[in-house]
Parts: sequence; C-alpha cells; structure tokens
Amino acid sequence: MNARIPTSLPFADWAKQVQSGMEDVLDRFLAPVSVVPARLHEAMRYTAMDGGKRVRPLLVYAAGDVFDTPLPLLERAAAAVEMIHVYSLVHDDMPCMDDDALRRGKPTVHVKYDEATALLVGDALQAQAFATLSAPLEAELATADAGMPARQLRMLNLLAQASGSVGMCGGQAIDLASVGMTLSLSELEQMHRLKTGALLRAAVLLGALGGKALTADESAALDDYARAIGLAFQVVDDILDATADSATLGKTAGKDAADNKPTYVSILGLGESQALAEKLRGNAHQALAPFGDKARRLRELADLIVQRKA
Amino acid sequence: MNARIPTSLPFADWAKQVQSGMEDVLDRFLAPVSVVPARLHEAMRYTAMDGGKRVRPLLVYAAGDVFDTPLPLLERAAAAVEMIHVYSLVHDDMPCMDDDALRRGKPTVHVKYDEATALLVGDALQAQAFATLSAPLEAELATADAGMPARQLRMLNLLAQASGSVGMCGGQAIDLASVGMTLSLSELEQMHRLKTGALLRAAVLLGALGGKALTADESAALDDYARAIGLAFQVVDDILDATADSATLGKTAGKDAADNKPTYVSILGLGESQALAEKLRGNAHQALAPFGDKARRLRELADLIVQRKA
Repeated sequence: MNARIPTSLPFADWAKQVQSGMEDVLDRFLAPVSVVPARLHEAMRYTAMDGGKRVRPLLVYAAGDVFDTPLPLLERAAAAVEMIHVYSLVHDDMPCMDDDALRRGKPTVHVKYDEATALLVGDALQAQAFATLSAPLEAELATADAGMPARQLRMLNLLAQASGSVGMCGGQAIDLASVGMTLSLSELEQMHRLKTGALLRAAVLLGALGGKALTADESAALDDYARAIGLAFQVVDDILDATADSATLGKTAGKDAADNKPTYVSILGLGESQALAEKLRGNAHQALAPFGDKARRLRELADLIVQRKA
Repeated sequence: MNARIPTSLPFADWAKQVQSGMEDVLDRFLAPVSVVPARLHEAMRYTAMDGGKRVRPLLVYAAGDVFDTPLPLLERAAAAVEMIHVYSLVHDDMPCMDDDALRRGKPTVHVKYDEATALLVGDALQAQAFATLSAPLEAELATADAGMPARQLRMLNLLAQASGSVGMCGGQAIDLASVGMTLSLSELEQMHRLKTGALLRAAVLLGALGGKALTADESAALDDYARAIGLAFQVVDDILDATADSATLGKTAGKDAADNKPTYVSILGLGESQALAEKLRGNAHQALAPFGDKARRLRELADLIVQRKA
C-alpha cells in the first residue's frame, strides 16, 4: 500500500485492499528467508503471511481514517498488532495449551515444524511486533512533526499493555483456569475482555493515537466502540464454533463443547447469543455517532464482525 | 534505588546495591499478585524476583555511568532487559526445549506450576519488558529534555531487535538445530553471538543510549567491548558446565555433554578455553581505553564475567 485507500470504495473492496496490502506490509517488516536462521524465518512467514481475516489491521486502518493518521504509522501499527495476534495463535495451538492441529485450513506450526520451533516463532513474532512499531520513521515524516516520537512511544506502551498479563496473556491464563468450571456471565465477559477484547481495543486506539491528539470524549467514544465490538467478536466466535463446520472455519469446529469450555452459547443459548451480538452491533454504531461520516469504515467493521460466517 | 550509586564504592558493594535495587525496580514494574490473574502474576514474580546474578542490569548501570544516563531511564532499561532474559530462561527450560527442572536452585516454572503457565509467564514477561521501557517518564525528566521520547524509542527498537529472530530467538533456533552436530569454532561463535551475545550487547548499549548522543567511535568501542564480554560469558559458561557441580551453579551441571551439545570445551579443550576467556577479558579492557576512569565499572564487570565461579 503506497497510498491511502479512497473512502469512496465499497466496503468489500476496501477490505480486500487492506488485506492484500497487509501481505506487502508484513513482507517488509519480517526478515526474509535468506537471513539466518532460515528455518525460523520460514516458519514465521508460514504462519503470518497467509491471509487470515486481518480484523485487527482493518480496525487500525478504519480508525486511522477518522483521525487522519499518517500512513507509515498505520502500516507499522497494523503489522505490529497482527504479529501479536498471530504469535498468540501459534502458542495457543501448542499441545500444552489448546493442542490444535488446524489453523486457517493449514497444519499449525508445531505440527508442520515442531514444538520448539513453534515456541520460538511465537517469541520472535512478539519481539518483531515491537521492533516494527518502534522502527524509525521516514525522515520527511519525522521532521514534519516533532511530536511523532512521543506518539509512537504511547502506541508502543498501549500495545505492550494490551498484550501482557493485564491484557491478552492474562485473559488466556483465566481461560485455562476456567476449563470445566461454571462461569457466570460477568466472569466470562471479564475473561474475553482480556483475552480478545484488549487487542481489538488496542487496534482501534493504535489507529487513532497515531493521528491528532484525542479529546477525552473521543477517547471514551472509541473505548465504547471497542468494548462493544470486542465482546461481539467473542459472542459470534462462540456461535460459529457451535454452528459452523471445520471446513468453513478453517479450524476445528465444536472444540469448545468438546473441551468443556464455558461459552456464550453454553450459558445463554443460541438464540439469546444471537440477540446479544445484534445488540452489541447497535451499541458500536451508537458510540460512533460523534464522528459522523469519517467513522464509516468502523461502522462497517462492526457489521462485518457480527455478520461474518467464519 | 532512589539515587545514583557512588562510583567510589568498592565493586562488590556497588554490585550488591544494584542487585538488591533491582528487586525494588522489578517490584515496581511487575503487576502485584493482588491483580487478576493472581496465579500468573505470582508465577511471573516467582521467576523474576529471586536474585540471580543480574549481569545484564549491572551492564546497563555500568554503561550508564560512562554516559551520565538519567536514573529513570537506567531503571527502565535494566528491568526490561532482565525481563527479556528471565522470559527466555522460562521458555528455554520447557520440555520441548532443554527440559530442565532446576534454575537458580529452584524448580523451574513449568515444574512448579505447569507447562501452559510457563508459556504464558514467558509471553507476559516479554510484553512487560516493552511496557516497562515505553512507560511514561516522570514529568520533570520528560520536559527537561525534548529529545527524550526519541531516545526511548531508539532503546526500544534496539531491545526488540536484540530479542527477536535476528538476535536471541534466532540464536536459540540455531542452538536447537545444532544438537548432535559438529560445529566449527566460527559456527559456534555465530550461534552464541545471537543467543547470549545480542542481549548482553543490548544491555551495554541501552545504558549508553539513554545518555548523551554517542559518536561513531564511542559506538564502535562499546560494540568491541560488548562482543568481547558476550563471547567470554559463553566460554566461561561452557567451562563451568564442564567443571562445577549443580549445587554451585544452581542449575543442572554437565548438561551440555549429556545433551551432546557442541561447546567451547568440547571443541577447544579446557586449557585453551580458559586462555581464550582471559584473552577476551584483555580485549574488553582495551576497548574501554578511550573512556578512561568513567568506564571503571564496565572493566570490573569484564573481570567478574571471566572470573566468576557460577
């Protein structure tokens, strides 16, 4: 992606451009296979560069549209948040965690390579996420805005917090501890707020933070939006896990029930879960009202998250 | 540590003050056990906060002395580089890697807790390292020097590069691939240059980068120093693994030979390995000549690294 994607494009085309552009951006920020150790770099690319829905990058770019964030910052943020997401999947699939053999329709890293390589691929992708977000900016951009390093620093701190023990890793620890237990709806919500919500929220805020300084009202509105789509994302995940097949999902379906994991469907039932997802979509739209037409892509992403089939 | 440690202290006292100060600094930058998820935070503290030699923090503070780096930056850098080191040990000890049950005289994390927790402890410690180094500075410091955010950003990028696939993780991947193989001396050196050398170098440069801008000559001299002590550290590690007992080391001794891993001792023999360590100590001292007396702690650390018994 060398230029901003016009907002006049239909959503599906816009999304496709972001998704295919992400392959280029990731290619730029991951070491080539020709660099030693070749096998590690090959495995990092195997898992990071094969499409996927790229929901988090889409959120970064959509939020960037609202706040006119410079493209080089959006690219770094989108690549970094996706690397964090991908590393978490690689580790999550390992035998000591979910022990899953299939991801995005392909063998998982520890199956295709080996467990030690999967561990290192995840570790190295996390490091590369922070290397990417802290990478020096093009000289024109750095000199055009003296506040740029401070902004980049805030973005790094946000991503690090969202990824760690009070964010994504913390949510996974709660998830592990909850297998076979009866969770209340609010306990389930807290787990997902950390496990998937924190990184989705980070994606929205990263896209915004790279632009002009946010007012307290704007921050609060983005937080409301992020909370709604974060929760909706998980509710829909649980619905799909219960209703879709593995071929459609590109990963093992029905796994939550088999693993005896508490889900929205197991607690609320299918109908109420679907109603909740729809209600959260409404909340997300409502939160975006102050941003008017500039938030069009964020609105469309809330729709995508709730209406997706995989 | 609220104030800089006087350079007039004897080395052993200085080192002791840095080491005990690190417990406070880590305590400040790790989430308390009272924060959810409690078990994850307990396990992170179990592995991060029990002493250890703190070689990397010592290097950060020693390099900071040469370049008058502000204390808050030294604290962040020392904590961050130590968290990266500790996370790498936790993952390295897991069954799919070195499968080690003992570390610093205590059960390793996956033995004391479980494998999934060890995986998450490592992941969360890595994230916390970057959260720590990007943490906002005290207002006085931030306003006293407008170049501070750019400096912090360079430090983050350095640490991320040193930790990832072209640094520490890359070295571990080469190490894994070399088990049971015959390595040449230069292949062994390349592996260790990444596996342990990259992070030791980062520690030296982090301490320096937080201070005044380095000249090209100063950078080159620090690099020479870091290369010499990085290599010396590994040569001495191999000597100790072959000659000391587990009780002294606080970890399983004789493991390299048992695992059929190439080491300096297996390639060069014991006598030549000891001579190499001594030669590298001389190289380290020589590299520091331009810095005069301000580099006294860095000199003493080179001595410590070569003359240590554990």
